[in-house]
Amino acid sequence: MKIDYILSMFAPKDGKFFPLLEETSTALKSASDGLVELFEREDPKEIPDIYKKIKSAELAGDKVTSKIHKELCSSFITPFDREDVDALADEMDGCIDGINRIAQKVLLYEPKRKLYFAPQMAKIISDGSAEISGAIKDLKTMKSSDGKLRKHYKEIKRLEESADLVYEKTISEIFHSESDPIELIKQKEILHELEKTVNRINKVGKTLKTIYVKYA
Amino acid sequence: MKIDYILSMFAPKDGKFFPLLEETSTALKSASDGLVELFEREDPKEIPDIYKKIKSAELAGDKVTSKIHKELCSSFITPFDREDVDALADEMDGCIDGINRIAQKVLLYEPKRKLYFAPQMAKIISDGSAEISGAIKDLKTMKSSDGKLRKHYKEIKRLEESADLVYEKTISEIFHSESDPIELIKQKEILHELEKTVNRINKVGKTLKTIYVKYA
Amino acid sequence: MKIDYILSMFAPKDGKFFPLLEETSTALKSASDGLVELFEREDPKEIPDIYKKIKSAELAGDKVTSKIHKELCSSFITPFDREDVDALADEMDGCIDGINRIAQKVLLYEPKRKLYFAPQMAKIISDGSAEISGAIKDLKTMKSSDGKLRKHYKEIKRLEESADLVYEKTISEIFHSESDPIELIKQKEILHELEKTVNRINKVGKTLKTIYVKYA
Repeated sequence: MKIDYILSMFAPKDGKFFPLLEETSTALKSASDGLVELFEREDPKEIPDIYKKIKSAELAGDKVTSKIHKELCSSFITPFDREDVDALADEMDGCIDGINRIAQKVLLYEPKRKLYFAPQMAKIISDGSAEISGAIKDLKTMKSSDGKLRKHYKEIKRLEESADLVYEKTISEIFHSESDPIELIKQKEILHELEKTVNRINKVGKTLKTIYVKYA
Repeated sequence: MKIDYILSMFAPKDGKFFPLLEETSTALKSASDGLVELFEREDPKEIPDIYKKIKSAELAGDKVTSKIHKELCSSFITPFDREDVDALADEMDGCIDGINRIAQKVLLYEPKRKLYFAPQMAKIISDGSAEISGAIKDLKTMKSSDGKLRKHYKEIKRLEESADLVYEKTISEIFHSESDPIELIKQKEILHELEKTVNRINKVGKTLKTIYVKYA
Repeated sequence: MKIDYILSMFAPKDGKFFPLLEETSTALKSASDGLVELFEREDPKEIPDIYKKIKSAELAGDKVTSKIHKELCSSFITPFDREDVDALADEMDGCIDGINRIAQKVLLYEPKRKLYFAPQMAKIISDGSAEISGAIKDLKTMKSSDGKLRKHYKEIKRLEESADLVYEKTISEIFHSESDPIELIKQKEILHELEKTVNRINKVGKTLKTIYVKYA
C-alpha cells in the first residue's frame, strides 16, 4: 500500500547512508570471496596471502561501520530509521568478523585433514553475502510493494536451512570417520564458526524482513 | 493501570493473529511432546516414527509462521504491534526448529550410551512449551493488570535456570564417567542443543515480558 | 544537539531507576572481582569461599533485576524508556549469570591443568564491568553531547576484540600442547564460557550505543 515508503524512509532524508551501507555490503562480499578462495587453494603456502585479503576486508568493514555510526549520531533522521540503519551496519560487520574468525581458525589450528565440508559452507556464505548486497541495492530503488526485498531474505533463510543440513550431515560423518578426537574437535570448531557466520547472515535477512514488515 | 490494553492491542484491531499464534504454539507443544516420547522409547526402532511426528510439527510451524508474516505485511496494524507479533511467531518457530535439530542429532550421531540426562531436559522443554501455549491463550483474554502473563514468563525463567543446573551437573558427570572422548563429544553436542532450545523458550518468555512491560 | 536529552530521559521522569541500575552494575563489578580472585588463588581450598562471593553477587543481581522489572511495570514512563532500562538491567544480569557459570564450571569439572589463559580473560571481564559501571554513572549526569558514554562502549568493544584474540590463540595452543582430549574439552568449555561472558558485556555496550544513537 504505502508505495515508495522504504525509499522515502532512507533515501531522501539522508542520501548519505546508502553509499555507506553499500560499502559495508561490498566489504562483506569481498571477505566471502576470500573465504571461497581459502578453501579452494591447493597449496597451503597461498593461505597467508588469501588471509590478508580477508583481513583487509574486515578492516574496511570496521572503518565504514564506525563512519555510519558517527554519521547516525550527527544526522537529523528519526530514531526509528537510526536503529534500522545501525542494525544493518552492525550485523553486516558481524558477518565479516565471522568470516575473519573462520580464516583465523584455519590458520591457527592447522587441521591435519582436508576440510571437505568447507567449500560448500563457504559457497553458502558467499551466496548469502550476494543476496545481502542485492538487498541493500534494492532498498534504495524499490517500491515496498514489489516484493524484491522479500525475495532476498527468503533466499537467505533457505541458504541458512541448507547450511544446517550440511552441518548435521558433516558432524555425523566426522563422528563415524575421524578417530583422532583432537582433530575431530578442530574440525567441529571450524564447522561451528562457519555455521555461526551463516546464522549471522540470516540475522541480516531478519533485519531486512523487520524493515519490510515495519514499512510495508 | 491501562486495563485491557493488551487485549485491545492485538485482538480488536485484528482478530486473525490470535488463532495463528495459537496454531504456532500448538505446533510447538506437539513437537515437544514428540521429544519427550523420543527419549522415553525403549526400542530404537521406534525412533524414525517419532521423528516423523516432530518433523511434521516443524513443517506446520514453518507454514503458519510464513502465513503470519504474509498477513502482517498486508494488515493495517501499527508497526509496534507488528514487531511483537512477528517476534513471538519467529521465536516460537525457532523453538520448534531447535527440537527438530535435537531429534536429528540423536538420529544421526547414534550415540552408544543411553542419554540419561535427556528425559529431564525434554520434560523442561515440554513444560516450557505448555507455559508458552498458556501465555498465548491468556494474551487474548486477560487484563494486563491481572498478572497471568507474568506468571508464565516467570515460570519459564525458572525452568531455564533448572536446565542450566542439569546441564552443568550432567557435563561434569560425563567428564568423570565417559572415557571415550568421541562419545563424550556426541553427548555434549546433544546436551548443548537441548540447552539452546531451553534458551530459545526463555527468549519467547522475554518477549512476553517485553510486551507486558510495554503495555502494562 | 539535543543536549541533556539522555539526562531528561531517565532521571527527572523517574529518579528511582538510576539507583537500581547502579545497584545491578555494582553486583556485576563484585562478581567480576570474585572471578579475578578465583583464578589468582594458589590454594584450591579457597575456591568454595570465593565461589560463595560470586554466588551472592548473582543473587543480589537477580533481586535487583526483578525489582527493576516490577518498578517498570508500575511506573509512568514511556514505552521507549522502559525498553531501554529493561534491556540494560537484563543484560547486566546476564553478565553476572555468565560469571557465575564460569565459576560453576571450574568447580564442577575439576580440570587437571592450570587454566593459564583464565586470569587474562577474567581481567578483561573485570575491566569491561568497570566500564559498564562507569557508563551507568555517566548516564545520569552527562550531556548526550559530551562523548563520555561513547568512550565507554568503544572501550568495551576493544576489550571484546582483545578477548577474541586471546580465545583463538589459547585454543590453538591447547590443540598443540594438550594430548588428553577430555582435559582439552574441559578447558575449551571453560574458555568458551569466558568468551561468551565477554560477548554479553559487549551486548551491554551495544545497548548503551543504541541509547546514545537514539537520543543523541
